[in-house]
Amino acid sequence: MSNTLCYINNRFVPYEEAKVHISDLGLQRGDAIFDYFLEINGRIPFLDDYLDRFYNSARLVDLDVPLDRALLKEKIAHLLQQNKFRNSGIKLLLTGGYSDDLYSPGTPNFMILNLHGIHSPDEFDAGVKLILLDYQRHMPEVKTTFYMPSISLFPKMKEYGAIEVLYHHNGMISETTRANIFLVKDKKLATPSAGVLKGITRKHVIMVAKELMPVEERDVSLDELWDSDEVFMTGTSKHMIPVVEIEGRKIGNGKPGELTKEISQAYERFFEKQGF
Amino acid sequence: MSNTLCYINNRFVPYEEAKVHISDLGLQRGDAIFDYFLEINGRIPFLDDYLDRFYNSARLVDLDVPLDRALLKEKIAHLLQQNKFRNSGIKLLLTGGYSDDLYSPGTPNFMILNLHGIHSPDEFDAGVKLILLDYQRHMPEVKTTFYMPSISLFPKMKEYGAIEVLYHHNGMISETTRANIFLVKDKKLATPSAGVLKGITRKHVIMVAKELMPVEERDVSLDELWDSDEVFMTGTSKHMIPVVEIEGRKIGNGKPGELTKEISQAYERFFEKQGF
Repeated sequence: MSNTLCYINNRFVPYEEAKVHISDLGLQRGDAIFDYFLEINGRIPFLDDYLDRFYNSARLVDLDVPLDRALLKEKIAHLLQQNKFRNSGIKLLLTGGYSDDLYSPGTPNFMILNLHGIHSPDEFDAGVKLILLDYQRHMPEVKTTFYMPSISLFPKMKEYGAIEVLYHHNGMISETTRANIFLVKDKKLATPSAGVLKGITRKHVIMVAKELMPVEERDVSLDELWDSDEVFMTGTSKHMIPVVEIEGRKIGNGKPGELTKEISQAYERFFEKQGF
Repeated sequence: MSNTLCYINNRFVPYEEAKVHISDLGLQRGDAIFDYFLEINGRIPFLDDYLDRFYNSARLVDLDVPLDRALLKEKIAHLLQQNKFRNSGIKLLLTGGYSDDLYSPGTPNFMILNLHGIHSPDEFDAGVKLILLDYQRHMPEVKTTFYMPSISLFPKMKEYGAIEVLYHHNGMISETTRANIFLVKDKKLATPSAGVLKGITRKHVIMVAKELMPVEERDVSLDELWDSDEVFMTGTSKHMIPVVEIEGRKIGNGKPGELTKEISQAYERFFEKQGF
């Protein structure tokens, strides 16, 4: 990371030197939103989808993004040109700014991070494990930074060999720490529609899968999950990952499902057609 | 604040220069807990109560406090000696530390902030207004930094002239942004017992009030709130503040209640007896 640049409040600075004063409200009060997307060979798939979501998150929690969309794209492009990565992550982070009383919002701090070498382990193809947490995110349509509920479960995740936490509440499932969840039952696909962050990959997987089978966006119960034939997750870095075990209970036969593979192949064809 | 010192990771540094790298998980993922208490004439009322709560918060979210209690007290004492404030606030903040992938916990960052001149406006005696939010904090017994749900309502708070947000969920009330809530009805006192951070001032107000009237710690509904004779909040900086209006609806006759005043006077006598 030694020569990596990032962007903070209208300045490009080396990542290693990128600091904020401790009075930042993102740090002191969790008053921050973000978004995250990938650069592939210098281009960013579905950039406008991600920026739509970022500006919408900011609006919903009353934070002003200091750059309009055109200028933001310029800054991202400049950052990518400087860092010269091929296949990197880009994280936008917007906080409530510096606050004298550590409570009242100030002028937002805005930063763009460009991260290299942290995505898409291939072992995910073999399927992954999840653990459960009774939790419903507040303002689920907003990409807030509050991940403590699952991060505090790292010891339990290690114990189970799980990579993420699946949230459920009142008997219904919603999403995992950083991904959307889908289940296959009787050759139909279902995914929760309420109380979730609407993933960009989720949107495209639904679109692609509809060519192959019935797809339902609706409430999905924990009971249905246990009774499902196949389960998978979708996310920006992961694309699609089979889920083979949840909280020690096998899903289906405990192996990646056939329809999951079929949808995944169709999604990868769709993705490649975008020219990335 | 120009000569104020604070403490970060075993160093005393000028507050103005106190910064964290942007890879801190408190900033990136809201993975942080804190506590807050007052120094009065060089002494800290109920310090062990606050430290009990701080170490308990840390334990419940799997964060290690890098100092044991004796050493932490030494650092706080040293900070107070250096800053020489009389009547200041002390904030402990513990985060998940620096994280290469901005997700996996690192070695916690721990800081002690000493804040001057931000507490207890006298105008609170006249009673304050609140607004409502349907929200239940996750792990309410942990003092997490996630205040975005109420901070994002600053514009609405301004519109109503409200100072804080009262949380309710499934028809029951819990707590406000930074305080506990009590209501008086038919000369009895009630305060929510579940889903709240157990305030140190709350504990002592209950103790004091029990000498004066029946006190119930139990579930309290929003309907009861509207039907109550008097409402007040308790907090470390505020001690007791009458609440006279919530979301535009007057409580009782819209003025601070007589029993609220009686309990408040008894609490202040108790507080002064501690020798502060």
